[in-house]
Amino acid sequence: MTPEEFRVAGHQLIDWIADYRSNLEELPVRAQVEPGDVQRSMAATPPTEPAPFATMLAALDEVVVPGSTIVQHPMHYGWFPANASLASVLGDVASSGLGMLGISWESCPALTEVEQVVCDWMRQLVGLSAAWSGTIHDTASTSCLVALLAARERATDLIQNTGGLTTLDAPLVVYTTDQAHSSVAKAALLAGYGWDNLRSVATDPETRAMDPAALRAAIADDLAAGRTPAAVVASTGTTGTTAFDPIGAIVAAAGESGVWVHVDAAMAGTAMLLPECRHLWAGVEGADSVTWNPHKWMGTILDTSLFYLRDPALLERVMATNPSYLASGADDTVVQYRDWGIPLGRRFRALKLWFHLELDGIDAIQARLRRDLDNARWFADQVHAEPDWVVVAPVELQTVCVRHAPDGLTGAARRDHNLAWARALNATGAAFVTPSMLDGEWMVRVSIGVEGTERRHVEQLWALMRDAAANER
Amino acid sequence: MTPEEFRVAGHQLIDWIADYRSNLEELPVRAQVEPGDVQRSMAATPPTEPAPFATMLAALDEVVVPGSTIVQHPMHYGWFPANASLASVLGDVASSGLGMLGISWESCPALTEVEQVVCDWMRQLVGLSAAWSGTIHDTASTSCLVALLAARERATDLIQNTGGLTTLDAPLVVYTTDQAHSSVAKAALLAGYGWDNLRSVATDPETRAMDPAALRAAIADDLAAGRTPAAVVASTGTTGTTAFDPIGAIVAAAGESGVWVHVDAAMAGTAMLLPECRHLWAGVEGADSVTWNPHKWMGTILDTSLFYLRDPALLERVMATNPSYLASGADDTVVQYRDWGIPLGRRFRALKLWFHLELDGIDAIQARLRRDLDNARWFADQVHAEPDWVVVAPVELQTVCVRHAPDGLTGAARRDHNLAWARALNATGAAFVTPSMLDGEWMVRVSIGVEGTERRHVEQLWALMRDAAANER
Repeated sequence: MTPEEFRVAGHQLIDWIADYRSNLEELPVRAQVEPGDVQRSMAATPPTEPAPFATMLAALDEVVVPGSTIVQHPMHYGWFPANASLASVLGDVASSGLGMLGISWESCPALTEVEQVVCDWMRQLVGLSAAWSGTIHDTASTSCLVALLAARERATDLIQNTGGLTTLDAPLVVYTTDQAHSSVAKAALLAGYGWDNLRSVATDPETRAMDPAALRAAIADDLAAGRTPAAVVASTGTTGTTAFDPIGAIVAAAGESGVWVHVDAAMAGTAMLLPECRHLWAGVEGADSVTWNPHKWMGTILDTSLFYLRDPALLERVMATNPSYLASGADDTVVQYRDWGIPLGRRFRALKLWFHLELDGIDAIQARLRRDLDNARWFADQVHAEPDWVVVAPVELQTVCVRHAPDGLTGAARRDHNLAWARALNATGAAFVTPSMLDGEWMVRVSIGVEGTERRHVEQLWALMRDAAANER
Repeated sequence: MTPEEFRVAGHQLIDWIADYRSNLEELPVRAQVEPGDVQRSMAATPPTEPAPFATMLAALDEVVVPGSTIVQHPMHYGWFPANASLASVLGDVASSGLGMLGISWESCPALTEVEQVVCDWMRQLVGLSAAWSGTIHDTASTSCLVALLAARERATDLIQNTGGLTTLDAPLVVYTTDQAHSSVAKAALLAGYGWDNLRSVATDPETRAMDPAALRAAIADDLAAGRTPAAVVASTGTTGTTAFDPIGAIVAAAGESGVWVHVDAAMAGTAMLLPECRHLWAGVEGADSVTWNPHKWMGTILDTSLFYLRDPALLERVMATNPSYLASGADDTVVQYRDWGIPLGRRFRALKLWFHLELDGIDAIQARLRRDLDNARWFADQVHAEPDWVVVAPVELQTVCVRHAPDGLTGAARRDHNLAWARALNATGAAFVTPSMLDGEWMVRVSIGVEGTERRHVEQLWALMRDAAANER
C-alpha cells in the first residue's frame, strides 16, 4: 500500500471511528453473539486476492462490532473502567504510523527519552518522589511478574546467574491476600516460587485489607521454619471490592526482613491524580516497586501499565542482555528499556500518554474522576436506602459492591441469586455489571468510571438492576 | 476529546503520516541526536493547560522525527527488517479506535475469534499442519519465555503448583547455541533454570548451525549426571548470520528424552511464506512450539509475534487463572487467550494481520520477499568479486554478513576495523548496518528487506560501504 492509498483509506477509517464513537450508546453493551459465531462469519482459508478498503470497513461493521462487548459504552459497569480516550488514540495512531522500533536507545532515541520524560511527568502527577524511575509495560500482570522476578533475585543474590532455583535449599515465599488480583498468583507460579510458598495473609473482614499483624506473623513463621521471605504484593484497589491494603504498615513489617514490597495499584493509581485520595496509599514511598494502569480509569488506551521502581540497577542486573549486535557508542550514558522488562522490541507507547495529557489536560481528567466518585457515592446511597439491598464493602472509590438479599433465600438459591440476575441483565445488552464471589456468595460489582457515564446512566442502571433482581425471584 | 474533535485531528494526523511516509527517504537513517537531546527538548514538568492538536503535530516534527532512527528507510540494513506496512497500520488504527479489551472471550468475542481465525490463516500460509494452534504475543522474547515455562512445567509435572523449583533435587537444563538470540538466555534465566544449566551446544564452523550430534551428547551427559534435560531452543534464522539449526535432527535427538523443542523462527518464519524456502525448517512438525514475527520481514507492524504450539491444554494448565470476576456462561466452549501467555489484558492485535493480508494480498508480499532474496544474492556476488572483502557466512536468505579484510591488519586493528567503519557510516545517516561479533572479530551484517529497498538502494549501499572502509584505514 502506498502512502497515497493510505491517505485515502486513512481518512475513511478516521470517519468510521468518529462515527462509531459517536453512536456507540445505541449499541448493546455486551456482544450478542454465541461462541463460534464470529469464526463462522470468516473464511476458513486465507484471502488470495487483494481486497478494496471498503471490504475492511464492512468487516468492522459486520464482524467486529457485533462481536464486541463495548467497554466504552456509558452503560458498561463491568470489571474496571477501560477507557480509551480519543486523545490517547491519536497518540497511538501516531505511534502506528511512525512504526518505530524500540530495541535499544540507538534504534529510536526519542522512543526511549520521551518514555523517560512522560513517566516522570506521571510520577509527579501522582505525588511520588523523585526517587522513583518509571517505564511502561503492557499490563499490571507483566509488571507484577517483573517485580517478583526482581524480588526473587534480590533475595538470592542473583541465583539465576549461577545454578538457578533448584540449587536453593530454602523455599522463597511471597505474601499477598485472597483479595489480590489473579495475576499475583500467576506471577508467583511463573517465577518459580511454587503454590505452597504463596501465603494468603488474613484480611480485615470489614475493609478486606491485608492485616499487617498477620503479615508480620507469617513472615516470622517462615523465617523460623528456615524459609526465605522474598516479596509482598500489596493491593491498592483490589479487584473484588477496591479495598486498600495499608502500605505503610506493610512496608514496616516487610522492611525488617528486607522483603521486596510491590504495590499493585493497577486500578487505584489513577485516583492518586487527586491529592485528596493519596492518603489511600500512604507509605508507598517505602515500597520497592509500584505499578498502575493509566489504561483503566484514567483512560489512556491499552496497553499502558506504568511501572516504577527505586533501584533500576538491580532490575537491569536481572534483565540485561548485551549482545554485540545491539551495541552502540552511546551505551554508557543511556537507558536501555529492554533491560527493564521481558520483551526486547517495544512500541512507542509513551505517545499515548503524551497526547492524552496534552490534549485533554489534567484538569479535565481530574474533573471526570471526581464526577465518578460523586456518582459512586450517590449510587451507594440509593442502594443503602432500598430494602432488600446491601452495600457489601466500603466504597473507597468508584466501585460499589452490592447484593440483592431479600428475606427467605437460603442455600444455593441465596448463593447464586445475584449471579443469576446479573447474567440476565448482562445478556440483554442494556447494561453490564460484574458478578463476583465474596465470602462464598455471589455479589455484584458496579464499577463506575466510563468516560461517557453521567448521572442519568447510573440512575438508569439502578432501575435496570432492581427490575432484573425482581424478575429473577 | 469529542468524536468530532477527534475527526478533525485524525484527518490531520493521517495526512501527516502519509506525508512522513512519502518523504522519509529524504531523512537521515540514524537519528542525528546525542543522548539527552530529546529529553532536554521537553518540559521537565507535566503540561497544565490543554494544547491544540497543532502542538502535537509540531512535536512529531520537532522532537520525535529528529530523534528517531528510521527503520522503514530504504537505506536501513540494520538488525532485522522492521517493516510496518501501511495496510497493517490501518488495522492497528482500527484496533486503537475501537479500544476493545481482551481479558476473556466475553469481554470481546471478536477479539478472541478473529485472532483464532487469522492465526490459522497464517499457519496455512507457512505450511504448518492443522495440529498447531496459534496466538499472538508481543515479541519472540516473550514467546520464548512462555515456551521455556511450559517446558519447565512439563518436565516437572507442574512443580509450580506445589513446592516450586526449590523443591527439585535435579537441575533442569536448556540447550541452545551461542548463535541464538540473546532472548533465549534471558528467558532461561527468568524461568529459573540458572546460567549453569544453559548449554551452548557446538555449531558447525561453516554453517553456524547447531550440531545435532553434540546436542545428543550433551543431553546424554546431563542425564548421566542426574540432571533433567527440559528444553531445546533451535534457531531458524539466527541473529548473527541467519543460520538454520537442523530442526529434524534436533527433534530426533531431543524426542528420545521427551525434551521440549522450541523453534525460534522470529526472523525466518516470514521466508516460509515461500514454498521454496520451507526446506530450511524441515522437521518443524516434530517440535513442541514455534514462534515467528510477521513484524519483521513480512511487515505487519510491531507487536505481532505468532506463537504456535501443539498442546495448548498443557500451556493452559501452566498459565490459567479463573477468578470469579472473569467467569461467564460461555467458559466451557471458548478459548481464553489470557491462559496462553503472561498478560491478562490484550489489544485487538489480529486486526493488523487481517488488514495486512487482505489489503496487500499474499501475492504481493511473496513477490517482495523474492525481490529481497534476489538483492541479497546480487549483493553477495559483488562482495565476493571485490578484493579485500569477504562474505563470512552462508547467505541463506536476505542477510549478508561481510568483512573488509585488507592485508596487513593484525590484533586489535584487525578485530575492530569493521566496527569502526560501520559506526562511521551509520553516523552519517546515509545508511545503517549492524556491526556484530563473529569468532572474536567484528563483521557487518547487511540485512536487506525494508519494503522500500530496491536494487538501486543496495547498489548505493555497496558504494558507501567501500568508501567508509577505505576512509577508516
